[in-house]
Parts: sequence; structure tokens; C-alpha cells
Amino acid sequence: MPDYIVIGSGIVGLSTAYHISEQDKDSSILIIDKYDGPGAGDTSKSAAAFRTAFTSKLNILLSSSSIEFYSHLQKNEKFDLGMRHVGYLFSLDKNNYSVFKKGLEYAEKLGVEFSEIENDYLQNNLGIKTDIEGSEEADIIGAHNIYKSILFKNAGILDPEKIIDYYYGKLKDRNVEFSYGIGIKEFIIEPEKPLGIEGEPFAWEEIKVKGVRLNDGTIVRANKKIISALGAWSNLYLNKIGLDSYSRPKKRQIFSIKADNNELKRILYSKGFNDENTMPFVILPKGVYIRPNPSENTFWIGLSDELGRKIELEDNPVAEENFYLYSILPVLSLYFDQFKEKNPYASWAGHYDISFDGQPIIYEPYESNLIISAGTSGSGIMKGDSIGRITASLALNKEYANLFDNTEFNVSWLGLEGRLVEKELLII
Amino acid sequence: MPDYIVIGSGIVGLSTAYHISEQDKDSSILIIDKYDGPGAGDTSKSAAAFRTAFTSKLNILLSSSSIEFYSHLQKNEKFDLGMRHVGYLFSLDKNNYSVFKKGLEYAEKLGVEFSEIENDYLQNNLGIKTDIEGSEEADIIGAHNIYKSILFKNAGILDPEKIIDYYYGKLKDRNVEFSYGIGIKEFIIEPEKPLGIEGEPFAWEEIKVKGVRLNDGTIVRANKKIISALGAWSNLYLNKIGLDSYSRPKKRQIFSIKADNNELKRILYSKGFNDENTMPFVILPKGVYIRPNPSENTFWIGLSDELGRKIELEDNPVAEENFYLYSILPVLSLYFDQFKEKNPYASWAGHYDISFDGQPIIYEPYESNLIISAGTSGSGIMKGDSIGRITASLALNKEYANLFDNTEFNVSWLGLEGRLVEKELLII
Repeated sequence: MPDYIVIGSGIVGLSTAYHISEQDKDSSILIIDKYDGPGAGDTSKSAAAFRTAFTSKLNILLSSSSIEFYSHLQKNEKFDLGMRHVGYLFSLDKNNYSVFKKGLEYAEKLGVEFSEIENDYLQNNLGIKTDIEGSEEADIIGAHNIYKSILFKNAGILDPEKIIDYYYGKLKDRNVEFSYGIGIKEFIIEPEKPLGIEGEPFAWEEIKVKGVRLNDGTIVRANKKIISALGAWSNLYLNKIGLDSYSRPKKRQIFSIKADNNELKRILYSKGFNDENTMPFVILPKGVYIRPNPSENTFWIGLSDELGRKIELEDNPVAEENFYLYSILPVLSLYFDQFKEKNPYASWAGHYDISFDGQPIIYEPYESNLIISAGTSGSGIMKGDSIGRITASLALNKEYANLFDNTEFNVSWLGLEGRLVEKELLII
Repeated sequence: MPDYIVIGSGIVGLSTAYHISEQDKDSSILIIDKYDGPGAGDTSKSAAAFRTAFTSKLNILLSSSSIEFYSHLQKNEKFDLGMRHVGYLFSLDKNNYSVFKKGLEYAEKLGVEFSEIENDYLQNNLGIKTDIEGSEEADIIGAHNIYKSILFKNAGILDPEKIIDYYYGKLKDRNVEFSYGIGIKEFIIEPEKPLGIEGEPFAWEEIKVKGVRLNDGTIVRANKKIISALGAWSNLYLNKIGLDSYSRPKKRQIFSIKADNNELKRILYSKGFNDENTMPFVILPKGVYIRPNPSENTFWIGLSDELGRKIELEDNPVAEENFYLYSILPVLSLYFDQFKEKNPYASWAGHYDISFDGQPIIYEPYESNLIISAGTSGSGIMKGDSIGRITASLALNKEYANLFDNTEFNVSWLGLEGRLVEKELLII
């Protein structure tokens, strides 16, 4: 019987298992995932970027330390994670900016660094059209000139698969077993001291989550704790035993465009924003974003739609061509007419697992032995190492987690009691 | 076209409509409910009690003012709500108490009044067995002696139907229409400025909730705001348009026992706890509660089970005889052997709509024109008047709600941004 069972082998599950094994070296861990290998769920569908530009203090702490850890791996341990500090550029119209400013002031107080970029500079170096008002298209769309652009430097792109490889590789050499290809059917709840009476557990018994039943009928139990790292799938299983992650899945789509002409290459390999001679991750008014993917000579284009985008879990979410054509392209081509005639050559979709305040949710409900780690809200990879440390510390009954950058993080800050709620304004 | 549409005609919907009509006297309101009349959903399934004994400041503010309003109606307006200040008695074992104490200290700081009742007094006046350890039953159940009992005086029982009658009666004389018997099929979202292009709304459009489609196909729209007061049913409709109440439904059951012998009557009509010569609402260790129902010479018995009780919405939840027999009765009969041979003569079930922190959730997501009022967490009736005032104030774009007791309540305190999160410890 393993000491710990971790359900879910995405970034949260692997990072948690890794840090449990760091902190409780003699322990045994079983990692379960319905996919055939690690990082095959929403982790693999990510826009694969990182930033410390958040408006909640906790999100800043989580991402800063995780990014420092990833940088350390890449620089000092020579484990290439594909990290490239291309920066994040928010280009805002006047209305956006008045909302954004609040978050910006707050982020600044919390030590997040940024600079303002002039429109002239953007036009020349990025090839973006900043003055678009007056055209019929702009009018129809209700799009406005770019008023301010803010560049965050401690931000960029990375390769989530490599982070998965890192944790997975380390875990393979430890006392960790992997069970891939079979999902769980349910969590098993039982009385702490079973009486052997039919109908158990009764409400007056001390009830614990003891293990899981897999879809093939196998039952596995843990000596110590069970960790639910199920992301968007969390509530499918939690609700059956009366628990909830208080986060919700929404489909998120990415469309890949080839930089197959000189105009587009000039955008992708923009100079003057970073040492990488690559465009920054750009967020346009109306939320359309462009994530440079220089290793494949492509752009990844996306948009997080909110009102009207169903809260729904799909096992195989599919990107919608019409979403690109009618919701993304009209905005994109207004600011970058270089994209006007371009069609995506590939697309994919995953979920964000969005919590009520945009911060992760990590707690053990009702002293049940079950730790819920969820609510990554679209920024789970860039916060992944910290989330794993905090979840591991909670599993080990510690009050504080020591983050990579030595921040002492009270595990209750992301719980439901003692939570520091600051609504995250920068969910992209 | 009405100015406001309120979906849901339970305590939250009616109180909200009432306070909208108080504050915006010339406005027209349409109230929609799938049931054939007001207060027919979970409002009618309630344990029908009130207390200010909470551990979150907001819950105390909400309940204090609502109770003052209800008392005012009963005393000054001579509108009988069946309010009887019988008190709430928490009888705790040593373990319960060590947890409870924290909440108690906190509640005391917030001005909630209570007194301690000695075991001798309880034995004599309530006929409860306080020393139960040593018996085989107590051993099996893991039940312990009563260590401390705390009586809250500003608490008691009331008749939710009468509160519904009050609001409904007032609303009938105002510019309010009622549409009963047909539920909604969906919320209608549309661009603020429709272009008449197929596939609308697009993500770049300014999208609003404009109305609802009923199950018979009728479409109704509102000039100003739509209010979702759907309680446990909220997310069935909200999720489809990408929204969530961040509260979850759980079945709650009540079993009614007749006080048909002298022993039981002595309990029901206990002296020495209040001016009503009625037992207080009693909460036993392990959470079993007894709500006196003197008007029908009965007790209402219940228990809020947490871990293991599914998060699930049922249109017709049914009380489970086995839940009474195996989860409630063993505890109940240990402290009150007068109930040993008694079977419920009636039972019913409804839902709690439980938010992540036990406080109501009231907010307008994405400036959508839709106000979500949910998460009453089992204490919606006793907070109903305040919840209605706050929801109404938000619908009227006010920053503060003026509660009946003149508390100025910032409407953002129960929203997701600016929320004052204090996990409520006393959900019964």
C-alpha cells in the first residue's frame, strides 16, 4: 500500500509528487492517470507561457518562485525547458487601460516590473497598426486605437513537456509507481474504524477518503493521503463524495499560424523587445493574444472568451474553426493586417480550470485525508512548482511551504478557511 | 417589457423583488418560477429557524437585520410570522467544544450573546442524558458526554410561508407580474448592439444577458436587469452561458416525530429556556438537531451530513428512512432515550445551496446585466430580507445597501471581487 496516491499526472500532480518525495524521502507514492503517460491532459494543451504579471499577491508569489525554479533548472542544472524571456506585451485601448491600470498599480506595489512602450516603437518594431479607428471594420467591431502598451520582462514562453519530463524523470528514480491508461471510477470513503455493518459509512462515523477504485475494478488505498490533482476533471469525482473544488472548466482554444512569408517573419522575429529577437507574447484589445512559437516558425493565437462560453467538461475538446474566423480573426487582422489572409494550419483545445478568484485552491476538506489541488485558472504551469510544494506541504501536515525562492507560504492562504482572496484581474 | 426579471420565487427572489420595488418605485418587475406559486421550492423544505449565531461577520450582519425586520413585522405591523424566540442550544462534547470555542470567541467579539447551561439544568429541564459514555451504544458510535452547552437567545423558529406571504402580498399590490408554472429553458445572451450576422454573439461584441426563454418557448426580456435567484438550480442555467454561482446543492432531510406521549411532551414544552415554555432548537454532538414544532405538537429532526453526501441537484429529493434509522436515531436516542421507539410520521427533503465559505454570493459577472444571488448555505430564510436588499441594491447599481437595522452594507462584500471571506463555521 503506497503512502500517498496522487490522482492526475499533469503539472500539478507531478510537481506535488516530486515535492512529497523531496520532503518525505522514505515514502512511497502511486501516481494514477487515465492517459497513457504524464502531462497528456490539459497540461499539453497550454499556451505554454510564463509571467509574474498578476494582480493577486499570491499569484505573483507562486509564479515568481516557480519561474525562478525553472530558470534554475535551465541555467544551473542544464535541463533545457525551452524557456525564453520574450516578455509579455499588453496593448490596451483607452477603456481597457482604465481597468488595467488598477491591476497595474497593484502589481507594481507587489514588485512586478514593467515598462511602457510607445506606439511609434510598436509600429516600427512589431509592425502593429496602433491607429485603427475610422475604418468600417473597426467601427463594426467596436475596436479602438491602442492607447498604451505595457511590457513585462520577467515573462515569456517555455515548453511544458520539458517540465513534465523533468519531474517525471526524477520521480522514476524514486519510490514512485505509475499507473497509466486507466482512470479512476470513484474515491472510496470509509469509516476510520469500520464496524462491518451494512450501510456504512453512517453520518456519525469518522469518515475518511481511503483510496480509489479504478475503472477496471482495482481498488488501491493509501497509508497517508490521497491527492486529487484532477484539474478540470476534479468535480466529476469529488461531487460524488460531497466535495467540490470550487473551480470550473472552460474550453480554451489555440490556433497555429505559420510565419510563411516575410511580413509575418518580421513580426515573429521582432527586434528590440528582448534578447531573443522574438516578438513578445502580445495581448491585443478584446483579449486576442499572439504567442510566438519561434522553434516551429509559427504563431499561436488564442482568446479567452468568458460570458457565453459554456462551463463544461469535454473529454476531447475540439477547437472551432468558426471561433477563429469570426471571433478572433476580425480583431487580429485589424491590428495586424499581415494575418488577414492566413488560415490556421493546426489547432487544439483544452480547459482552464477556473476558480472563483483566479487563484489556485488547495485544501483538505473535513480532515478527510483527501487533498484537493485545483483551480489553476489558466496559469498552472507557470505556478506549477509552487503549487506542488504547497500541496505537498499540506499532505505532510505542514503549516508552511518553503518555495524555491525561500518564500514561506502559509498553506491555508489557498484553502477555503484562512484564504487570502484577491480576485485575479489578469486571467488571459 | 418589464424593467426587471427575477427568476425564482423563493425567499431570495421575493425579497429581492420587494426591495427593488421599494427602491425603484416606478419600475415594473416580472417574477418567474417553475412552481405553481411562491415559496414552493427549497424555501418550503426549510428547518424554519433563525439565529444570529454565526462566525462570519457578514452572516451576523445579514441575519441580525433580517430578524429585526421580521420581528418588526410581527410586532409592529401585526403580521404574524410565527416567530418564537425559543433559542438555539448547542450541546457539545469535549472535541466539538474545542473547535466550537474558536467560533464562539469570534461570535462574541462580533456581539452575539449567549450563555452557558449546566448539565444538571439540562437533565432536569430538558430531560437530556448528558452522561452517556460507558454504554455499548455510545462506544460503538464514538459518542461522548456533553461537556458544555451554549444557549443563544436571539434565535428561534418561524414560519417561512408567512414571510413568503408577506412579500408576495405586498408585491401583488405593486407593478409586479407573476409567471408561475413554467420554468426557464435558458438565459438569452445577445450583443448590446446586434449586427444581425449569423453566429452572433462574437467574442469581440459587448455581450449582455437580455432575457430568458421559458420552457414553452416564450421569450421575455428586461429593460434593466435580470436577477438569478434560482438557489440550488442556479448552475443548471448559469453554466450554459459560462457563469457559475460558486455554490453547490446538497440534499438536506427533515423527519417529523409526534410528541404523542408525556415523556416527549415534557421535552417539547421544556420550561426554563425561554418565555415560550418550549424547548430550544437543540444541536447535539455529531450534528443531529431537534427543532421544536409546538404548533403541531411535533419535533423536526435533521442532520447535515457533509463528506459522503453527494453534491447533486434533484427535482424531487426524498428523505431516506435509512438515513433516519441508521445515521440519526442512534445518536438521538443516546442523548434522549425518549425517542428510542419513535418513528417519523412524516419526512421531506430539500437542498442547501452551499457556497465555498458559507456566505451568500451576490454579484454581477462581467457587467452582464445578470445579477446572481445564491449560496444561501442553509440559512437563506433567516438572512432573507438582507439578501434581498443587497441584491436589489446591486441591481440598482448602488454601492451600498441599507439594511433594515440601518447597517450600510457594501454590496461588493458578498461579490467575488472585494469579497470579505470568512469561512462560516456554524453551518447546521
